[in-house]
Amino acid sequence: MALIVQKYGGSSVGTVERIERVAEKVSQWVRNGNELVVVLSAMMGETDRLLGLAREIVPRMGGRELDVLLSTGEQVSIALLCMALEKRACPAISFTGGQVRILTDSSYNKARILDIDGIRIRRNLAADRVVVVAGFQGVDERGNITTLGRGGSDTTAVALATALDADECQIYTDVDGVYTTDPRIEPEARRLSRITFEEMLEMASLGSKVLQIRAVELAGKYNVPLRVLSSFEEGEGTLISFEEEDVEKALISGIAYTRDEAQLTVAGVPDRPGVAYHILGPISEANIEVDMIVQNVGADGKTTDFTFTVHRNDFSRGLEILKSNSTILRAREVGGDRKIAKISLVGVGMRSHAGIASKMFRILSEEGINIRMISTSEIKISVVIEEKYLELGVRALHDAFDLGQTSAAAREAEDARS
Amino acid sequence: MALIVQKYGGSSVGTVERIERVAEKVSQWVRNGNELVVVLSAMMGETDRLLGLAREIVPRMGGRELDVLLSTGEQVSIALLCMALEKRACPAISFTGGQVRILTDSSYNKARILDIDGIRIRRNLAADRVVVVAGFQGVDERGNITTLGRGGSDTTAVALATALDADECQIYTDVDGVYTTDPRIEPEARRLSRITFEEMLEMASLGSKVLQIRAVELAGKYNVPLRVLSSFEEGEGTLISFEEEDVEKALISGIAYTRDEAQLTVAGVPDRPGVAYHILGPISEANIEVDMIVQNVGADGKTTDFTFTVHRNDFSRGLEILKSNSTILRAREVGGDRKIAKISLVGVGMRSHAGIASKMFRILSEEGINIRMISTSEIKISVVIEEKYLELGVRALHDAFDLGQTSAAAREAEDARS
Repeated sequence: MALIVQKYGGSSVGTVERIERVAEKVSQWVRNGNELVVVLSAMMGETDRLLGLAREIVPRMGGRELDVLLSTGEQVSIALLCMALEKRACPAISFTGGQVRILTDSSYNKARILDIDGIRIRRNLAADRVVVVAGFQGVDERGNITTLGRGGSDTTAVALATALDADECQIYTDVDGVYTTDPRIEPEARRLSRITFEEMLEMASLGSKVLQIRAVELAGKYNVPLRVLSSFEEGEGTLISFEEEDVEKALISGIAYTRDEAQLTVAGVPDRPGVAYHILGPISEANIEVDMIVQNVGADGKTTDFTFTVHRNDFSRGLEILKSNSTILRAREVGGDRKIAKISLVGVGMRSHAGIASKMFRILSEEGINIRMISTSEIKISVVIEEKYLELGVRALHDAFDLGQTSAAAREAEDARS
Repeated sequence: MALIVQKYGGSSVGTVERIERVAEKVSQWVRNGNELVVVLSAMMGETDRLLGLAREIVPRMGGRELDVLLSTGEQVSIALLCMALEKRACPAISFTGGQVRILTDSSYNKARILDIDGIRIRRNLAADRVVVVAGFQGVDERGNITTLGRGGSDTTAVALATALDADECQIYTDVDGVYTTDPRIEPEARRLSRITFEEMLEMASLGSKVLQIRAVELAGKYNVPLRVLSSFEEGEGTLISFEEEDVEKALISGIAYTRDEAQLTVAGVPDRPGVAYHILGPISEANIEVDMIVQNVGADGKTTDFTFTVHRNDFSRGLEILKSNSTILRAREVGGDRKIAKISLVGVGMRSHAGIASKMFRILSEEGINIRMISTSEIKISVVIEEKYLELGVRALHDAFDLGQTSAAAREAEDARS
């Protein structure tokens, strides 16, 4: 008998019919002899409906009452699923975040889980009930309702799996797993049967938005095996766990990309201590988040070129700030490009294999793609290129690193991992 | 400075615009120097929407999960009102039933309030906040969510007013007070500025559905002055309180009626002990509620005629049960009438005034209305008549007892009471 925590997202419980389908799936797991804790999001559209009501009253929302409002969405889902389970003679009981004391800090709208009291859940599991918990919410120590921010139901599921020492945490979503890259760009993209936490973190933060990044971090921290599966199709999904010996056979797990960034450049700044601070200080004061940062010594050896990327929505504001500071910075030139894309190779195998970076640069150059920025970490190489080359670049790299479905090398590597 | 508990029903918070209007009203009361506790129902239509979702899953609903589902309705209202109050620079804080520990028994869907812990509310009132509480809901001692049944928000308001020793409990609704009778039947009907708890109980249970009957009972029991007012119009409404000295001047406070009852008769039953039990036992076993009961000795002195009224929806089922028992009962005849109506005169003044009943019967007879059943209590006389005479009877009695707006006697009596 295994203890499984399952999480179903908003589209998986988007209609009463889909809730019935989830109930069918859950009761099947129970019939197969497992103990089940199920975490639910609000029905798709419900959170937006509630936000719409609030926005009619206060255009800029936030604070304690927004969480009181939004937390009702998941409460509706858990009640309905329990009804659907009981109809199937599968005893079930629902709990709000507060009822199982998912204790958080008091940061309304983006609270962090501090502790979970598993006693009430364990008692109900022992009484052969499926325990259905509202995702995305908790209470602070004074009993105020908090929410974890959008998508926080993944975090609830992982935190519960940790607190209950579950055998597996399964995240049901509308994709059937983690892919080597976006199948809309590369039809040859292949579902991975396994991936490491670190790779998943790099994939998630780079735009393969399958899982909430905090959930992956948490699962990695407490070593909870995490599985991504489809609510709508059968299949094993992708298991996210710690690196194993033979994982190293595979150099690259996948190719992530983003196209919602823009590039800002300050060229010809006198090279002295504090340049980075003087450039980025005003940017961060304006609450603009910076992703990649690259600094090069200029050709003359006395000035430096400083380039960074921000979210595309912040491009104009960022450029303005730089321009208004350019005299203080004594910069020769301030500029930028709104139309860039970032491509990243991700894989723990990189650690022990040299030459991945140079191969990547060669492939891109063979396709005539100019690289504007490079940034590397232990298990990731990212390059910034002109946006129009994004699809071409992804496909070329996917093919060159043998990630496709039809690649024999890929099959072997995959077999070795699973 | 007065402590006021206000309750706004579903139509008063039916849209965001109406919630804004309630916020306007509440903040006005605060500016006038009062401490405010506000109890809200779910937005109109919300409870039905939630019931609709549940009904898609289980046609016959009930139990624990239904309360988890339905209690979200009020939670949405309280959050939105607090946002609207804060927009008006009127500090406010919302609480669910569980958060202020409205402790109930565990009878899901129809729980009763056992206790309220006023500490958290008092602390927030002392910090100059409006306290907004979700009506209709509580928690049992194990922390399970319960609801008080539909309309239970009135009960929440009265229970809070009692626990906090409030100066007044104001129930805002879509009528502007309690009337001498239904203005749709008698345009001359007049709003009462005062009425006693006992009269209100008789009026409410007889079909003038302004207030939930349990709320009135509770307010009477703990002597909380209760006021019914309109959310949409200005006005003093009707104050429901204990009888005062000069109340006795008014014989009759109002005329109530129902038209959703039906009459069942068992005629010519041998008159022996246990007749009533043998007739009504099977009826109550079938969960049919009985309202009026009248038993007469038959003309021959050896048999008896037994008549009672039930809800019109239960008529056919009741008749069937009687028929299947008629041989055991040795009844000469079993019959009934689906189309009856009940008219009741209500007034504490009746206690000390003889002749009210005979005047009532005379007025009805002068209009050619035949009386089928009579039932009396200390402050009420009810008669059952053919349904088609209902409006005629109400108007004739309203006029004869000087209840109209234009009646000088009524004005005087009313002046004396208020």
